[in-house]
This record gives sequence, structure tokens and C-alpha cells, in this order.
Amino acid sequence: MKNCIIAQSGGPTSVINASVIGIFESNLKQKYFDKVYFGINGIEGILNNKIVCSDSLDKNTILNLKHTPSSGLGSCRYKLDNYLDNSVDYEKTINILKNYNIDTFFYIGGNDSMDTVLKFSKYCLDKKIDINFIGIPKTIDNDLVYTDNCPGFGSAAKFISTIALETYLDSCIYKNNGVFILETMGRDTGWLAASTVVAKIGEEFIADLIYLPEVPFYEQDFIKKVENLLKIKNTVYIVISEGIKNDKGSFIHKNTPMSYDKFKHSQLGGVSSYLKQLLLNNVTNRVKSLELGITQRCAMHCVSNTDIIQSYKVGEYGLELAKQQLTGIMPIIKRTSNNPYKYEIEHIEIQNIANKIKYFPKEWIDIEKSHIKKDAIQYFEPLIDGNEQLMYKNGLPEFSKIY
Amino acid sequence: MKNCIIAQSGGPTSVINASVIGIFESNLKQKYFDKVYFGINGIEGILNNKIVCSDSLDKNTILNLKHTPSSGLGSCRYKLDNYLDNSVDYEKTINILKNYNIDTFFYIGGNDSMDTVLKFSKYCLDKKIDINFIGIPKTIDNDLVYTDNCPGFGSAAKFISTIALETYLDSCIYKNNGVFILETMGRDTGWLAASTVVAKIGEEFIADLIYLPEVPFYEQDFIKKVENLLKIKNTVYIVISEGIKNDKGSFIHKNTPMSYDKFKHSQLGGVSSYLKQLLLNNVTNRVKSLELGITQRCAMHCVSNTDIIQSYKVGEYGLELAKQQLTGIMPIIKRTSNNPYKYEIEHIEIQNIANKIKYFPKEWIDIEKSHIKKDAIQYFEPLIDGNEQLMYKNGLPEFSKIY
Repeated sequence: MKNCIIAQSGGPTSVINASVIGIFESNLKQKYFDKVYFGINGIEGILNNKIVCSDSLDKNTILNLKHTPSSGLGSCRYKLDNYLDNSVDYEKTINILKNYNIDTFFYIGGNDSMDTVLKFSKYCLDKKIDINFIGIPKTIDNDLVYTDNCPGFGSAAKFISTIALETYLDSCIYKNNGVFILETMGRDTGWLAASTVVAKIGEEFIADLIYLPEVPFYEQDFIKKVENLLKIKNTVYIVISEGIKNDKGSFIHKNTPMSYDKFKHSQLGGVSSYLKQLLLNNVTNRVKSLELGITQRCAMHCVSNTDIIQSYKVGEYGLELAKQQLTGIMPIIKRTSNNPYKYEIEHIEIQNIANKIKYFPKEWIDIEKSHIKKDAIQYFEPLIDGNEQLMYKNGLPEFSKIY
Repeated sequence: MKNCIIAQSGGPTSVINASVIGIFESNLKQKYFDKVYFGINGIEGILNNKIVCSDSLDKNTILNLKHTPSSGLGSCRYKLDNYLDNSVDYEKTINILKNYNIDTFFYIGGNDSMDTVLKFSKYCLDKKIDINFIGIPKTIDNDLVYTDNCPGFGSAAKFISTIALETYLDSCIYKNNGVFILETMGRDTGWLAASTVVAKIGEEFIADLIYLPEVPFYEQDFIKKVENLLKIKNTVYIVISEGIKNDKGSFIHKNTPMSYDKFKHSQLGGVSSYLKQLLLNNVTNRVKSLELGITQRCAMHCVSNTDIIQSYKVGEYGLELAKQQLTGIMPIIKRTSNNPYKYEIEHIEIQNIANKIKYFPKEWIDIEKSHIKKDAIQYFEPLIDGNEQLMYKNGLPEFSKIY
């Protein structure tokens, strides 16, 4: 008997469950694994035997996870020690997996989760344990190297640009409007903020300034630019990444004490309020700001069809990798054409991607460092394209919950 | 030659432009008015001759306003003096309207805008001036009396409950989740927050606590309830109106200095941060909050089909009222059946509704004053029902801008 287990980890996305269903449904057709288990709350839950057999759940409820946002199998942020330092978690996990006759462990996550996959695959290779570990990529941040884009990013970008259009229209209705600041996620990279370069009404692009963590943010320069724009425009629309930094590499948002998560990433958010206050003090009393918060990573009602298809396909492809008995690898998306958008799915050894960051390309940032070049549009547009038909009941989407 | 003018005022909604198109398209068919003018930035713009003839604009751009959120004709918050105290604005406006041969002035807005319509209609009746003033209702707050619901409310409620479902799923993924607080608009009334009573996953209603401005909010009681819920639940999901008040009628959100708009309404928002801090100090270190801000009033991408149809129809009906040479009146929606949802459009004299507030019914608030009775669901569900097909281009909705 040969079984597999699927689990999720890290921050959720709108389409992280589509990858689960890509694996699950592909196996339903091929019957390669006898049983598909779900690990609840990632490796942290698995260590506590929180494991559910998919056979025990209603199949339609499982399949509707494809259209359910956030981590349908729960999640965790659990940092594994290096096994040479401490192998307790490794031994415990492997024992549990052996009890369930697990052949392949699919772990859907971002950079930190791939670090977990890498560690387990190395441990098993070293110890000659016959369990394979396959990473399935997801992150709204779009910051995994080698892959053209990351499942989850397109939907977040689509929601952000849609909200940008709508809040732009909301923010320009009066005789005197002033400044609107939209804050997106993006701690290290500015892909999400940059994606708003696509947002336009008619032929008019709405964002006047777009700031990313990739280039230093100078407060005086910002003030000057807003002042100048207000001389010629009634509404100044600004998009910023939460992670913008000064020229010393420190986060601009310095008003509140920093907290850190278990991976020692500082918890951000709130820089738009800081910049709002900066403009109120120095430029105009007409400033509004909006922090999108978690809505941008779970807005299934505005999901990108391209993104949900790609997320499903990297799951499907994961099963093919399992059939080849590979370990320590992850599917990646290779773009072959912008228009029409074409791509192939390949794979890469996770040691090549774990703990690396793909920054927004410098050549797409304009010379003033406060906007994105239009060249980037052909990259973004295919990723946000297409709407997905969800099931609705009494006016609201029908989502699944299995645990 | 008999012409009309349409203008908008107050805060925008997703469907306020559907009412413009209801008037405009109905007149295209009937050719009752020779010319349809648009007043830009409401009465404030009209006083400055910001008037555009619809004939000078591309017709498809105008018609696409039906699917464009926010005030397509611009808006204002302009408080008219009583004309017996100061009639300058009245005389100036009437002169401008006469220059354009205006027979009927359609003003789309909420409570404050209806005050403007009432004042102008009274002034013209008193002065025997032959211009009619018709109010067309809009407000996401749903607080106009006599009408079953207000155009704009259904779409805001649909977006809020959709986001509630999605953020609920996002907030319950870890082993230890804690508390999530969603803050909606609603200064005086709790209709928007209360509408989340409809949000459920499967048969499970997601909101554990819902607080409205209509009943006093006791901080100690809130702390106690959250503590007790956390003993039995891994995630506590709370929805609050921005305008919740203590038993003395003062707003709970007291951390920041209050600012006031021109109608002396205090500018709110931020009570969720205050309550988050209260829980951090007293109950748990696992609290997140989300202030939806203006997204809830302009999320056309999540518009309610019922709402957009009703908004269009009150516009259409407005033209019928104009043909009857009525003044100082406003269409209202009369519900005749919950299931199937049926309604008729009637009208009422604005003096009966201006400056009055329709509160959320006490009989739908539960005895603990921290939740909504399920009886209210049959009121809300029809208003958020149905999805509207928007035009999309390159993954984003195509919106119109005419000024």
C-alpha cells in the first residue's frame, strides 16, 4: 500500500487549495496512491498526529476547496532545526509518516516551507529513508526564484488593482481631493505594489507614484513629489509596499514597536498611516490611506482564472513528480510567450531556490524610483486575466471547511 | 425646450451611477427632456457652472457608468443655509438652472442631500419658480426612513459579508488563532455590521459577536464574552460598526481627536484598533483587526444584482415623477414579499424623511445585545442576491470617467 500526504504552511493565498485539488483530483483519475491523507496545520499538526484520510470526508466538500480561499488544511509557521543539531522532530515525523505508509509528502508553501521540504528530503536521503518530499509553490509575494510567477500572486495582484481602480474613483469625487495612499503587502519585494501599474480607466493610468522595497525611499523627495503633483492634479494616487526602506535599509514605518514572527521576519503594516501623517504635517490636510491587510491574500471572489489554473496544474504536476520517485524538488512555471500567454511547467531542485529572494527587476523601475515602467505590464497582465465562476448561494460564495 | 439636470452628493456607493443611467436611459427612450445635463460635484459645482451636456459626451461612456462605482458626476458635501437666513446660493442656483432651461433637478444622495432637495423645492414653491426637485435615494448606511432599503446598501452588505467569509477562513488557519475584529461603516446605525449575520460556511454562522451603535457597548462585558468564547473556540470572529457607543451615548473610539465634517458629523473609523488594544491588554496576545474603510462603498466588482437593478429603477421612476411635474419628493422601495423577493416603487414627500434616521430594529437584536437574531436574515438575503456581469479588459473591470 502506497499513500501520500498533503499539507500547507505559511500565509494563505486565494488559490493554495487549488494545488491540493490538483494533486487530489489527478490521483482520483490515476489511482496512483491508494490513500490521500491531509495533514492539518502543516508539519506542526502532523507532529501531533493531526492527519485526516480523504476517504473519510465528503468528496464534493473536498473538491469545493478549489474555490475556497485560505489554507483549507490549516497552516503553521514552524521552523525546523537543522537535523544535525536536533533530530527529534525528524524522527517523530518519519515515524508518523511510516505508520500511514506515506510514500510522498506534498508540502504547499512559500520560501520557509521549501526550507522544510529541503531539510526533510536531505534527512531522508542521508538516512536512506524511502519517503519523498515534494514542494508545491505558493506565495502572493511572487518572490520565489526560477519560477516565472508564484501561484497566489496573480489573484492578489488582480484584487489589489481592482480595489485600486475602485478606490481611485472613490477618492476623486470632490472639488478638492488631495492624496490617497494604498498600502499593499510586500515585505522584501514590491511585486504586489508594482502590479498596480496595469490599473487604468480608459487610457489613463491611475497610480501617480508607486514605491517598492527594492529602492530606497527618501521622505523629503516623497514630500516634494507629492507637492508638485498636487499643483497639477486634483487627486494624487499613491501605492506603496509595506516594506519600503530608507537608504540604510531600515523600514520607513518606525512609529510602532516591531514584532517578529518565528522566522525572525518583522511584522509590518501601517506605513501608509505613517506617510499619511507625514503629508498631513508637511503638505496638505487632505490625505486618506488604506491598508489592505489580509483581504489581498484571500479574496477568492476576485480570483484570477490564470492563477487558479496554474495553481491546480502545479499540483497535478506534483503527482507526476511523485510517480517518478523524485524528492527535494518543486514545480516551476516557465513563461514561453507573453501574448498570447503561454507557459510550461518544469521542476527544479529545492536547494536552488530555498531561502533565496526574487526581487522586482531594477530595469522595470523608472529612473525616478517612484514608478514602474510600462514594460512591466506585459508581465503582469496575463497573470490577473480571466474570472472564475464560483458557486453562490443566497448572494454569497459557497466555501468548504474540512477541519 | 425642457431640460433636466442630474447631480450627485454625499458619500459614493457602488450603484449611485445606476440611478443616473436609470434616468438617462429612460429619457433616451421617451425623449421627455430635450437635453439631459450633468451637474459636476453636486450643488457646489453647479453653483460654479460646472455643468456638462450629455450630448457632448460619448454615449457608451455614459452608459458604462451603470457599471462604474463611486459618484460618476462627482460629489460634494455642501450645507445650504436656510433661505430665510441667506438666499444667495438659492438665487444663484436658480439663475444658472434657468439659463439651461431646467425643468427638473434630480439629486441623488442620502439624508443630507435630501435636506438640500427639500430646501430648494420649498424655496421654489414659495417663490413660485417653476423648477421641480426630485431626490433619488442612495446610502450604504440604509438609514433612510419609509423605504424598505436604500440603493447602495445591498452591494456594501454583499461585499462586507463576502470579505467576512474570506477573512474568517484566513483567520482560522493556525493551531492558535485568537480573535479577529472586522470594522464596518455605520456611524449612527448598524445595518452594515448586522448584515454579516447571513455569512456562513456550510451551516456554520461565522460571526460570534456583532455590535451595533443602536445598543450600548460595555467594554467589561465585551472582554468577558471574548474570554468565555476563547475557552471553547479556537477563533473568535467579531464584527463591529464604527459608531458603537457607550451607555452615555459617546463613541467608544476615543483614542484619537475627533474631526468633524461640514454637517458636524464626527469622522469615525479606527474603533477596531482600539478594541484590539483592549483585548491585547486584557485577554490574549492573538488579536487581529481590519478596518474595511472606503472599499465597502465602492466595490463594484462584488456588486449585488438586486441592488443595481433597484438603483436603476428608482432613477427610471424619478423620470415618471418628473413627467407628473412633482417636486420635493423621492422614490421609495416597498417590499411586498421576502421569498420570493418582491417590491414596488412608490414615492414620498421628502419633508417626511429628511433628517430622520431609520435605526436597525431592536427586535432583531438578541437579548445579549451582542448578536443579531436569525429573523433578520430574510430581510438581508434578497438585497445581496445575484452577481452582475461587468465588462473586463486584461483582467480588470472597465470603468468610465466622464469629467
